[in-house]
Amino acid sequence: MLHDLRRWRWDRWQELTPGKKEQLLDRWQDFLEESERVEGEEGVYSALYRVVGHKADFVWVHFRPRVADLLDLERAWERTPAASLSQRTFSYLSVVELSRHSAPPFPEGVDPMTLPPLRERLVPTIPNYRWICFYPMSKRRGETVNWYQLTGEERSNYMRGHGAIGRNWADRVKQIVSGSMGLDDWEWGVSLFADEPLWFKKLVYEMRFDPASALFAEFGPFFIGERLDQTALRSWLR
Amino acid sequence: MLHDLRRWRWDRWQELTPGKKEQLLDRWQDFLEESERVEGEEGVYSALYRVVGHKADFVWVHFRPRVADLLDLERAWERTPAASLSQRTFSYLSVVELSRHSAPPFPEGVDPMTLPPLRERLVPTIPNYRWICFYPMSKRRGETVNWYQLTGEERSNYMRGHGAIGRNWADRVKQIVSGSMGLDDWEWGVSLFADEPLWFKKLVYEMRFDPASALFAEFGPFFIGERLDQTALRSWLR
Amino acid sequence: MLHDLRRWRWDRWQELTPGKKEQLLDRWQDFLEESERVEGEEGVYSALYRVVGHKADFVWVHFRPRVADLLDLERAWERTPAASLSQRTFSYLSVVELSRHSAPPFPEGVDPMTLPPLRERLVPTIPNYRWICFYPMSKRRGETVNWYQLTGEERSNYMRGHGAIGRNWADRVKQIVSGSMGLDDWEWGVSLFADEPLWFKKLVYEMRFDPASALFAEFGPFFIGERLDQTALRSWLR
Amino acid sequence: MLHDLRRWRWDRWQELTPGKKEQLLDRWQDFLEESERVEGEEGVYSALYRVVGHKADFVWVHFRPRVADLLDLERAWERTPAASLSQRTFSYLSVVELSRHSAPPFPEGVDPMTLPPLRERLVPTIPNYRWICFYPMSKRRGETVNWYQLTGEERSNYMRGHGAIGRNWADRVKQIVSGSMGLDDWEWGVSLFADEPLWFKKLVYEMRFDPASALFAEFGPFFIGERLDQTALRSWLR
Amino acid sequence: MLHDLRRWRWDRWQELTPGKKEQLLDRWQDFLEESERVEGEEGVYSALYRVVGHKADFVWVHFRPRVADLLDLERAWERTPAASLSQRTFSYLSVVELSRHSAPPFPEGVDPMTLPPLRERLVPTIPNYRWICFYPMSKRRGETVNWYQLTGEERSNYMRGHGAIGRNWADRVKQIVSGSMGLDDWEWGVSLFADEPLWFKKLVYEMRFDPASALFAEFGPFFIGERLDQTALRSWLR
Repeated sequence: MLHDLRRWRWDRWQELTPGKKEQLLDRWQDFLEESERVEGEEGVYSALYRVVGHKADFVWVHFRPRVADLLDLERAWERTPAASLSQRTFSYLSVVELSRHSAPPFPEGVDPMTLPPLRERLVPTIPNYRWICFYPMSKRRGETVNWYQLTGEERSNYMRGHGAIGRNWADRVKQIVSGSMGLDDWEWGVSLFADEPLWFKKLVYEMRFDPASALFAEFGPFFIGERLDQTALRSWLR
Repeated sequence: MLHDLRRWRWDRWQELTPGKKEQLLDRWQDFLEESERVEGEEGVYSALYRVVGHKADFVWVHFRPRVADLLDLERAWERTPAASLSQRTFSYLSVVELSRHSAPPFPEGVDPMTLPPLRERLVPTIPNYRWICFYPMSKRRGETVNWYQLTGEERSNYMRGHGAIGRNWADRVKQIVSGSMGLDDWEWGVSLFADEPLWFKKLVYEMRFDPASALFAEFGPFFIGERLDQTALRSWLR
Repeated sequence: MLHDLRRWRWDRWQELTPGKKEQLLDRWQDFLEESERVEGEEGVYSALYRVVGHKADFVWVHFRPRVADLLDLERAWERTPAASLSQRTFSYLSVVELSRHSAPPFPEGVDPMTLPPLRERLVPTIPNYRWICFYPMSKRRGETVNWYQLTGEERSNYMRGHGAIGRNWADRVKQIVSGSMGLDDWEWGVSLFADEPLWFKKLVYEMRFDPASALFAEFGPFFIGERLDQTALRSWLR
Repeated sequence: MLHDLRRWRWDRWQELTPGKKEQLLDRWQDFLEESERVEGEEGVYSALYRVVGHKADFVWVHFRPRVADLLDLERAWERTPAASLSQRTFSYLSVVELSRHSAPPFPEGVDPMTLPPLRERLVPTIPNYRWICFYPMSKRRGETVNWYQLTGEERSNYMRGHGAIGRNWADRVKQIVSGSMGLDDWEWGVSLFADEPLWFKKLVYEMRFDPASALFAEFGPFFIGERLDQTALRSWLR
Repeated sequence: MLHDLRRWRWDRWQELTPGKKEQLLDRWQDFLEESERVEGEEGVYSALYRVVGHKADFVWVHFRPRVADLLDLERAWERTPAASLSQRTFSYLSVVELSRHSAPPFPEGVDPMTLPPLRERLVPTIPNYRWICFYPMSKRRGETVNWYQLTGEERSNYMRGHGAIGRNWADRVKQIVSGSMGLDDWEWGVSLFADEPLWFKKLVYEMRFDPASALFAEFGPFFIGERLDQTALRSWLR
């Protein structure tokens, strides 16, 4: 997964002629449409969201089977005229993973990719919700409170409680956790999807008292965005 | 709520012709007037303040019922000529909330929005004071001192003392606390409003010795601003 | 008090014609002269210092009775041509205060502004020294070492020792401590004035072993500047 | 070793004429070819990788016998037209070293450079893998958990376990650890090379539970890149 | 002492005409020559080094009797055409001092400036070595491990061991420690000079296990540079 956060140069956008604007927008819409599809797969694999506040104006969220595909997507975007009016402010590279703490049991030696419910979790598509909340996080490695010194059983117990909160919210908030150790500066990325942004607040609030978060979670920046489909993109830039 | 802090490009402003300045200012005043109102509601929902120091030149404070309304406001501002001379330096997204520690008791199962005194606290308008002080904050989650490991009763006791200080100042300083877990990088935003900026200092000083702050509060940047109404905006830019 | 630190665009300054330079300098000198005076008061209330190193090229230090006066001064400066060649790098808003730990005793209920020695400390003018050292600081609120959990008596004891060091240096270094809780990002600003910059080093060195500093002080950036009067300003820019 | 991370000005690249692009690309390819070789040595000593995310667009990795050679390389790059469209975002200077904890035993008094297997580790060439993962790190010097207060034997025990993990992965991930105390801001640089970027994640994940990491490791930013040879460089910029 | 680190605008340098380049270089050489001398003193008091990596392209190191001289030097540099193509990235102001822990004993009441070996340490000239390593540092003031709460005797014991390591290296690495409390953001600056940059790494590595460093040292950024005399400056820019 790549979360690619960018600021939009509104000042330079305002200065374009209507014709240039139209041309840029057409190409952006084409790119949005093309990037949604992964060959040979069903569903939507890239999405665009307008983002609240100064940290970014929009975010591209890309799901792809290989890291090289993400590099190609970054490069393809740079070939569009819209790219020149955008400036990167943050990005995050991570890999969707199946938590050993929350996965349903499956027989030893079976490739999870052959089991449809597991495959769906390992190869997710963009959930069809209006809002996204993204933040990276790590587990604390403090001098006395240190996640990586717990036993596997202790970690499982902590994560079970944590997972239960997520499941209570599962009908309203779709949660995709991706790992980024060795890939980016935090250890995990958390992408929440919902139709109502206040649910992000309620869910995160509830989790913060869960011991797995209270004791061990360290949080990076939070980004909130609203989905821009073809029509919304056009009216946003209008 | 969105706090939208911006630097003003004074150097580029100085270079505009008087006609361009006038046009920009007219549009800014229109925007200020329009943004103040929320359809179907009484009162003022957006305000502008000039800000002391290098962290920003001015701040927009917007109260809106939905996050999408804030995104629309950000976009509408970018359509004004003033936006091109402003650069974002900070912003904060949060939701006004009723502290369970300070709310007057009300019957279980009653929607607080149906009770006028609670509704007023949940749907505030811009208080009619000359000065604003805004800062975000979080509760400490240290290795030994950790707010999220306290019991609900311990937290209530801490917050009761904290609330008492606020109430002593209530006739001089209006305090709006908004929550931002899952929405922005700190856990709460604190907006203080008063006619005398030194009261912010006295109130914050007093609170800092309160155990809820002394032990558990971590503070983000502080911003101090003075209200710019239509007339003051014009004379500020004159 | 406002400490307003700015970088000077030497590259753009070099490109100005001699006539433009002269005009800019005249206006800057006028501004310096005007800003020194506060109506109805004796003494100098604003000063300019050239600053060592990359953190700033110069600093404006303004003492004013009201925060709104500081906002007006910032705005007035932006109307001068010199402002366009300067870029803000730091600033600090604080209020001169009388430490309860170091103030000479005075009768309960008496307004300190009516007592000349106290008034002089509460409404200081720019001390007539060649050098300034400015830094902001806070008291530690650690998990175990926490200033705000001490009793008032413990704090007084700590500050008494601290004040004694300052008084030993009083004939060489004038010290103005200003409070900034609720106004800016640290809790205090410390402005030292002397004719020899090495005295700043000696004084700060001595204080660092004092328990009030050793245990509790957290320091922000340090700025060192040399006073620019009308003549020095002109020869600096020559 | 020098890791030299740079952003590419795609906006300015797009504006070049096809002729200018061709010329820049030819020179870049020449530079890539020339920099690969060190006089009198076999193998490849410099490589280029395109990098995922906003932290950089590409990274130069240079191995050279002397620090002065790295300075010369930096200067030579600045003479190419591509340099003007690149902006540095990070860099890292370090020296390949042989860990006393993982080196095979060799007789006292023997210069390791005379033993081929040790020489190969002390004078590495660019491993022939498609992907790189680079990150700097330090050992913790906490108030209670402090690597530099352990005995040599304790450190050896910790590093032996750590090394065992690396050796399990040795057929898939080539690991070059370089020291940077006194040379750059962290204590070590870690360069991992593999044909599959997910192996970086699996290796780093496994190591994080190893006590040497769990207790003592502090990590800097992570960078992931894919090798750009002559052909890939051309098609990337095409 | 002033360490003045600057980035060089290679892109703008490339665009200058040969004539402009020559003129800029001549003036830079003149400045280098003039800045080396201090009136009435023997030896070299300023030097220039090209710096490895993105943190700077070169560093000016100036030794002067008074802080005002450093301000004058900064100003004089800004009058040269080279200054306009350079951008400051870091700087450090400090004062050469004689550690009470390492100074040879001398009679009470004697001014050390009258004793040649002490004078040489208090008024150093630029050592005649090819490489420089500069970094600022502070002593830890942690909640439990706190340098400023040790007794003078404890501090002396720690520093004696520390000094012994330095003396072992004295024939290869010249070390100048300067104090910056009250002058800049760290407490000391350390300037190491040698003909082989790897010696910096070995010396710093050895010191890191010394308890004075292991327990108490906190390090700022490290900068490594190679001396640019008149000839080297010209060939570097050629």
